[in-house]
Amino acid sequence: MTVGESLDFSHHFSEETKARKSSPLKTCIHLFQDPNIVFLGGGLPLSKYFPWDNLQIESPLPPFVNGIGESPSGDDKDTCHVEVKKNEITKAGDTNDIQLSRALQYGFSMGQPELLSFVRDHTQLIHNMKYSDWDVLATTGNTCSWESTLRIFCNRGDTILAEQYTFSSSIYAAEAQGINVFPVPLDEHGLIPERLETILDNWNPETKKPKILYTIPTGQNPTGSSMSDERKVAIYRIAQKHDLLILEDEPYYFLQMDAYQKDVSQRKETEFASHSDFISSLAKSFISMDTEGRVIRMDSFSKVLGPGTRLGWIVASKKILQAYIKLHEMTIQNPSGFSQAIVAGTLNRWGQGGFLDWLIGLRREYNEKRDVAIDALYEYLPETPALRVNPPTAGMFFTVNIDASAHPEFATKYQSKPELVEQAIYDKVIKSGVLVVPGIWFKASGDTQPPQPAESKKELDPNGIFFRGTYAAVPLDKLKEGIQRFGIALKEEFQF
Amino acid sequence: MTVGESLDFSHHFSEETKARKSSPLKTCIHLFQDPNIVFLGGGLPLSKYFPWDNLQIESPLPPFVNGIGESPSGDDKDTCHVEVKKNEITKAGDTNDIQLSRALQYGFSMGQPELLSFVRDHTQLIHNMKYSDWDVLATTGNTCSWESTLRIFCNRGDTILAEQYTFSSSIYAAEAQGINVFPVPLDEHGLIPERLETILDNWNPETKKPKILYTIPTGQNPTGSSMSDERKVAIYRIAQKHDLLILEDEPYYFLQMDAYQKDVSQRKETEFASHSDFISSLAKSFISMDTEGRVIRMDSFSKVLGPGTRLGWIVASKKILQAYIKLHEMTIQNPSGFSQAIVAGTLNRWGQGGFLDWLIGLRREYNEKRDVAIDALYEYLPETPALRVNPPTAGMFFTVNIDASAHPEFATKYQSKPELVEQAIYDKVIKSGVLVVPGIWFKASGDTQPPQPAESKKELDPNGIFFRGTYAAVPLDKLKEGIQRFGIALKEEFQF
Repeated sequence: MTVGESLDFSHHFSEETKARKSSPLKTCIHLFQDPNIVFLGGGLPLSKYFPWDNLQIESPLPPFVNGIGESPSGDDKDTCHVEVKKNEITKAGDTNDIQLSRALQYGFSMGQPELLSFVRDHTQLIHNMKYSDWDVLATTGNTCSWESTLRIFCNRGDTILAEQYTFSSSIYAAEAQGINVFPVPLDEHGLIPERLETILDNWNPETKKPKILYTIPTGQNPTGSSMSDERKVAIYRIAQKHDLLILEDEPYYFLQMDAYQKDVSQRKETEFASHSDFISSLAKSFISMDTEGRVIRMDSFSKVLGPGTRLGWIVASKKILQAYIKLHEMTIQNPSGFSQAIVAGTLNRWGQGGFLDWLIGLRREYNEKRDVAIDALYEYLPETPALRVNPPTAGMFFTVNIDASAHPEFATKYQSKPELVEQAIYDKVIKSGVLVVPGIWFKASGDTQPPQPAESKKELDPNGIFFRGTYAAVPLDKLKEGIQRFGIALKEEFQF
Repeated sequence: MTVGESLDFSHHFSEETKARKSSPLKTCIHLFQDPNIVFLGGGLPLSKYFPWDNLQIESPLPPFVNGIGESPSGDDKDTCHVEVKKNEITKAGDTNDIQLSRALQYGFSMGQPELLSFVRDHTQLIHNMKYSDWDVLATTGNTCSWESTLRIFCNRGDTILAEQYTFSSSIYAAEAQGINVFPVPLDEHGLIPERLETILDNWNPETKKPKILYTIPTGQNPTGSSMSDERKVAIYRIAQKHDLLILEDEPYYFLQMDAYQKDVSQRKETEFASHSDFISSLAKSFISMDTEGRVIRMDSFSKVLGPGTRLGWIVASKKILQAYIKLHEMTIQNPSGFSQAIVAGTLNRWGQGGFLDWLIGLRREYNEKRDVAIDALYEYLPETPALRVNPPTAGMFFTVNIDASAHPEFATKYQSKPELVEQAIYDKVIKSGVLVVPGIWFKASGDTQPPQPAESKKELDPNGIFFRGTYAAVPLDKLKEGIQRFGIALKEEFQF
């Protein structure tokens, strides 16, 4: 298939981005490598004053036959040894390593070539990109990338769209910048395209239209919902119609699992005959259907390797990435050289297939954790129509929806205010020795004025509240214990 | 001495900072460590899914008797072995290590305790802090910290003060945010207090007064000048009078050296009898004289260990650091866990004294590099009053000041415009195979309207231009060769 170039979305850039100049020093830093030039141009310390050499670290070896949860034994047969020297390439096969003399120096605003090259191949493998001038940019993770995205596109007073309940830090970052977060309703299949379209079709022409839709399509935080492929197609079409950029924040993308099967005897975990079987099983991403460069995808190693790597990447058109690079040169510069050297060193030894093996192993673990959590919810939560469990098919989170009006003191003590019931339950669960968090913490309650059609503001369930729990953070026995405590707290509170 | 608490400078915070909410999730993340609570509150992956263990790296061992430029041999007698496990504290003496299970997890917005504790002790040792409620915060380096500082204190349309020539990226970061950078004249002893005072005393009362003075006191970039202790005292007093915050950006602080001695026979390098002798030799910092929490100091490992660590720290009052922490939670979160584990692992093995030994070794290296550079400038540059070399006493940079009007074609080809001569010289040096950079690249040319007294805008030397070179980036032989090429280029261009 011949693919075309991306469109130009520079009309969406913020005043700040339009005004941002590149440092002239960056225009000559390439001369550092030019053998004909003596470089007296920039304050780059000599690498001989970097005090480190012989970086080594161990990881398990693909295909991770003992699962991914075991530390490497140190034995060569099941251990991947990463060894990065300061100056030399020591062994054949290590040519993909980022020597410390380079990893620890200035330069490479986009990230180190050995890391980018792995991530590019991975991106093509998973998303089969549909336009030609895309690229990847190394980041310090999606939290920072989102904040940068707001700086790059939005001015004070702008409005963006987001799922009605979403990652609170993402909302607060926008609000601090004076950006209004307009909520779009979602259900267990994610954001609802019809609602999005109604909102945009009826947008008050006297106010600036949103430029960006912020979405967490897979294992949405906090609802745990995952967006269906059909909805994505519909939303992409709406984005085209209304000139929206889609920002897909996908830290949980590889934590996709089988649909929850309540009947244990019917439960059967999917086995993948091949890597391409695994890839085919994955949800269609927005970036994979993007022919125009309208989608900006934020990926992260935080949930699949470790948050402390502070390493992620953005996939977008080169035209858009330029704006991120210019901002990065004034902010993070680039991710830690140690992180890049270790992650690239590990992934280039594992190979693309090895990384997929890791992700398949991770899927298996989360599948089990999800099953244990949902089983425990069905076992320990009072059986009543006032409580509804939503078994997720991806991510780290489950939610329990509660009809606050079922509380015996709803109309009296709580004055028919569901948020007061929510707070009371939260206090109760903490006292009971378990932490699950109230849905209200995640509510995008931005200004929905100027008036939108009443329909777009209608709550799906006016007395509905929910709590978000995770099966990620604790081992299985603790998980069961925590959910049992949650069940007891609800039973006591509601006198079910 | 009894020391008091810092003052409250929250009136200087930007609208953004005042509006920034903390994520409620951060309020409960401490429960992750609470043994009475089952933590189902946040998406923290289990550390058993972090694929790494047995991180090892080598560095030289204090007191670095063979200098700091040699790689460790691997022999125990001159090699410091850092070994960080995933879960265990393996040996006595390793209790200061940041285990990978923690380094790679979420949390610790301020930085890991083992790193902070080293940096706190170092700060007290060097700066002998004069108020009680100061602290340190781990950052990803001064570039990012400066950009964050602007976000924390400035609104669009605000004005800040900076040295007339300063790090261009710092200027551009401000300008992109719609902040005006008002230039304050400086000479070889740094920013001139009298000029600063005149500017502020005569500030147009109808426009907002600057809140911040941005300064690089030691080895200033690009001029290479270092501010005298007396000037710092005077400037601190002016800051108190005009309610200014002082932002001291000090990446080159430990690259202080002996005064340049032209006569080689008179040259004698200072030997320090003790660590406290070394500390006494250092320039007085603004933070060391701050009794009010009016100074924010940005320090970095970039120039003393390696830029790719992407690790630095801020010293300031706890009240002010709170605003940085809240911003960090939406941006970088914290520096790379690998960087923190390796740097803390190394520094805690070296000890405070060992780190000082390293810094003394670094001083020696830069002292030599500076001498070689300045010797070469005197040797290869044409001897004429139109050229003036400024031997620096700190940092990475030297400058050559040029009287553009001495160019034979100044009034004709260059229409008496010094900036055209500057561009012609730049083109010429690049063609001659050396890169030095024009002073104009660093000029803070912000709006100085509303009118200031003419005196405050007067150029010290209207036809003066300069070029910045560095002795940091190349070995000594290359350095000499580069300066020789620079000299030939100037000779040809000016027909001296």
